[in-house]
Amino acid sequence: MKKPNVQLLLTGNELMTGDIVDSNSAMIAQQLKELGLDISRKVTIADDLAILVNEISQLAEHADILIINGGLGPTVDDLTAQALAKATNVKLTEHPKALEHLTTWCKKRRVKLSTPNLKQAILPQDCTIIPNNQGSAVGFKVNYLNCNIYCTPGVPRELKVMLTEQIMPDIAKSIPNKLILDVTRLQVFGLGESTLQKMVDDKLPDWPQSIELGFRAGMPLLEVKLTTTNQKAHDQKHIWQKKLIQILGDHVIAQINNEPLTLAKHVLLKLADNNLKITTAESCTGGLIASMITQEAGASALFEAGFVTYSNHMKTKLLGVQEQLLNNYGAVSHEVVIAMAQGALKNSSADLAIAVSGIAGPDGGSEKKPVGTVWIAWGSKNNLKSVCLLMPLPRHYFQKYIASIGLDLIRRELMDSQEIPYYIIERQRK
Amino acid sequence: MKKPNVQLLLTGNELMTGDIVDSNSAMIAQQLKELGLDISRKVTIADDLAILVNEISQLAEHADILIINGGLGPTVDDLTAQALAKATNVKLTEHPKALEHLTTWCKKRRVKLSTPNLKQAILPQDCTIIPNNQGSAVGFKVNYLNCNIYCTPGVPRELKVMLTEQIMPDIAKSIPNKLILDVTRLQVFGLGESTLQKMVDDKLPDWPQSIELGFRAGMPLLEVKLTTTNQKAHDQKHIWQKKLIQILGDHVIAQINNEPLTLAKHVLLKLADNNLKITTAESCTGGLIASMITQEAGASALFEAGFVTYSNHMKTKLLGVQEQLLNNYGAVSHEVVIAMAQGALKNSSADLAIAVSGIAGPDGGSEKKPVGTVWIAWGSKNNLKSVCLLMPLPRHYFQKYIASIGLDLIRRELMDSQEIPYYIIERQRK
Repeated sequence: MKKPNVQLLLTGNELMTGDIVDSNSAMIAQQLKELGLDISRKVTIADDLAILVNEISQLAEHADILIINGGLGPTVDDLTAQALAKATNVKLTEHPKALEHLTTWCKKRRVKLSTPNLKQAILPQDCTIIPNNQGSAVGFKVNYLNCNIYCTPGVPRELKVMLTEQIMPDIAKSIPNKLILDVTRLQVFGLGESTLQKMVDDKLPDWPQSIELGFRAGMPLLEVKLTTTNQKAHDQKHIWQKKLIQILGDHVIAQINNEPLTLAKHVLLKLADNNLKITTAESCTGGLIASMITQEAGASALFEAGFVTYSNHMKTKLLGVQEQLLNNYGAVSHEVVIAMAQGALKNSSADLAIAVSGIAGPDGGSEKKPVGTVWIAWGSKNNLKSVCLLMPLPRHYFQKYIASIGLDLIRRELMDSQEIPYYIIERQRK
Repeated sequence: MKKPNVQLLLTGNELMTGDIVDSNSAMIAQQLKELGLDISRKVTIADDLAILVNEISQLAEHADILIINGGLGPTVDDLTAQALAKATNVKLTEHPKALEHLTTWCKKRRVKLSTPNLKQAILPQDCTIIPNNQGSAVGFKVNYLNCNIYCTPGVPRELKVMLTEQIMPDIAKSIPNKLILDVTRLQVFGLGESTLQKMVDDKLPDWPQSIELGFRAGMPLLEVKLTTTNQKAHDQKHIWQKKLIQILGDHVIAQINNEPLTLAKHVLLKLADNNLKITTAESCTGGLIASMITQEAGASALFEAGFVTYSNHMKTKLLGVQEQLLNNYGAVSHEVVIAMAQGALKNSSADLAIAVSGIAGPDGGSEKKPVGTVWIAWGSKNNLKSVCLLMPLPRHYFQKYIASIGLDLIRRELMDSQEIPYYIIERQRK
């Protein structure tokens, strides 16, 4: 069977003006790849009815599958339904299913269904509605000139769910003899792409070409993908995956099935398993660790309180850090960060703590303690450890990376890891 | 003079697979914008000679200016020169100027000029070489069917310099009566795109077509752009901008010059002006408000401490919220959120507080207090206000939006705003 020709049409003035960078098409490409499909061509145009109509006609003539992204919103410059109806010579009509979705959507949010919103139920006749449980705009599908046209929302979160739950399964049905593609994904923390690649080159020089090693950098987690495209390679992969995990050690957090979990979620799951509670005492990360923890549903059972003590005075008042320690060693010191952790444990009745004190910059550094210096303490009351790292990164990245390291150190503690993580080997300040 | 039709052709397998996100086209669009030009259409394809040739022919037929990006490198899948020669029916030939550039380039780096590199000097006959002082690949320009075709390197750093120093000045020469473009940008909080559009439609029905109203949705801020393209419209804009700000009221945070500031930064600037300090007492936002504040450099002077009190017990222990209040009214109540704010003010010696207690979900809701119910208290010791909103959004969006509303209420307090914000009008739970 011939592989279907998949093309993409992205619409939106904001994509043409350079105001936003398109990440949706990468998301679509990645999901298609898991079905063994590529995008052969991608056209991006502004919101202009005549151009849209012409483009859709052209694309439908050459493609077997056309995914249109954007232009489903309530405003006048959202033209996809109108353009598609014109290009395929059908009428626009109110779709009861779409209207029902909109009504329920507004009801749930206790807002009135407005006239602009109503427009989102006016769709090409005979199109198939694609549910959207993330936003007001439903998607829809039309077959024209033997081309399956899928119209999808521009909001990434809505697109993602619609692709995963609706469109990819639908496309998969239309390619019965699909390629045998096998992707294994690992979540890794604390190693960059090039460091990891170098580790593979050095320690596994015979890595087979038939197992493609791919990376998808995220902050803070790196996704490592092992892709094989034939049965022989699938069979081999198991062995090489084991070897890879062996050299990466506890930097590997998990193998990803479905949706990847966040670092905080992994920590929470381990805490729940051990029936332990956690607390935070944050200076330079300013509440970010607490926020990462509480972003996860179910955090309330494992996290009762967190302390953001930005000033020295508050470290003393809220966490009982002795003034003498602050005066003698400074706020960014082993002594203070340990005292912060102790204070947080005492005041919150938690079992484990992460405490952080550092210089996020751009100001506040000195020769002895330059911007990027940070002390982290972690552990339980009778087993507190600490480390000093130097991470001269822009403020926001510094905070995000340090908060993530704090969580990772707790994760390692909870799994009794004896390894020294790469970020300590590389960044420890002695 | 008619505005030239500019189109873009991006080539590269990596752009199709989703492995990289294209930021080059945004860079090109932004530079063109300064000449008053838009990109009307953008086509992205993989590295395939036949498809490239066909695409170039098609594009050159319709465009006045075609910018081709990528495919100038030394490897076999770099096909731009070859495809362009074929599409325009000219021979490929070695260009002395290109060869000289390559020789100098390699000499400077003390590397040998390799055979693959030599390929980069083989270009379409009669093309004009565009210098590249950042990399090995020169750009080149061809005129075909009255279309100026610019071939540019895919490496962003090389592209940027070539655009700024060579291509934009060249394009500018071809549009002697260039358009005068004027863009005003406003930062807005608390109004969505469609709400804002509706307000304009209702209250300013005569809004002139010559002042283009554009939106760029961010979380939490919305950017509103007023764009005019001729002197008459520029002159008018001032009046309409004033009318717009009048109907949007204090939802308008600022006019944006250079880089837009965050909501937290606006609050911090106002706090500094008034010599006031702020604190936070967070339940359902779990440290996010503190984190948003401390992401800003200089926060330490205005924010000493924040409290994350997730459990009832910790609200009592750390903020002094009376157990009786928690038992009688529940944690999500006017009484408790006011007590939380009072406790935070008392314990942190701050002048202003934001306190938040709500049900972020997905669990924990009841009929009386469904998921999305949240109490917010804000103000100073003797002037604490509170409001209850219903925001049934996914957990993460709920937290982000509520944290932003907390900051916005403080911003309004600091400017003595008497207006009731739209999010209260729409979302207040009575």
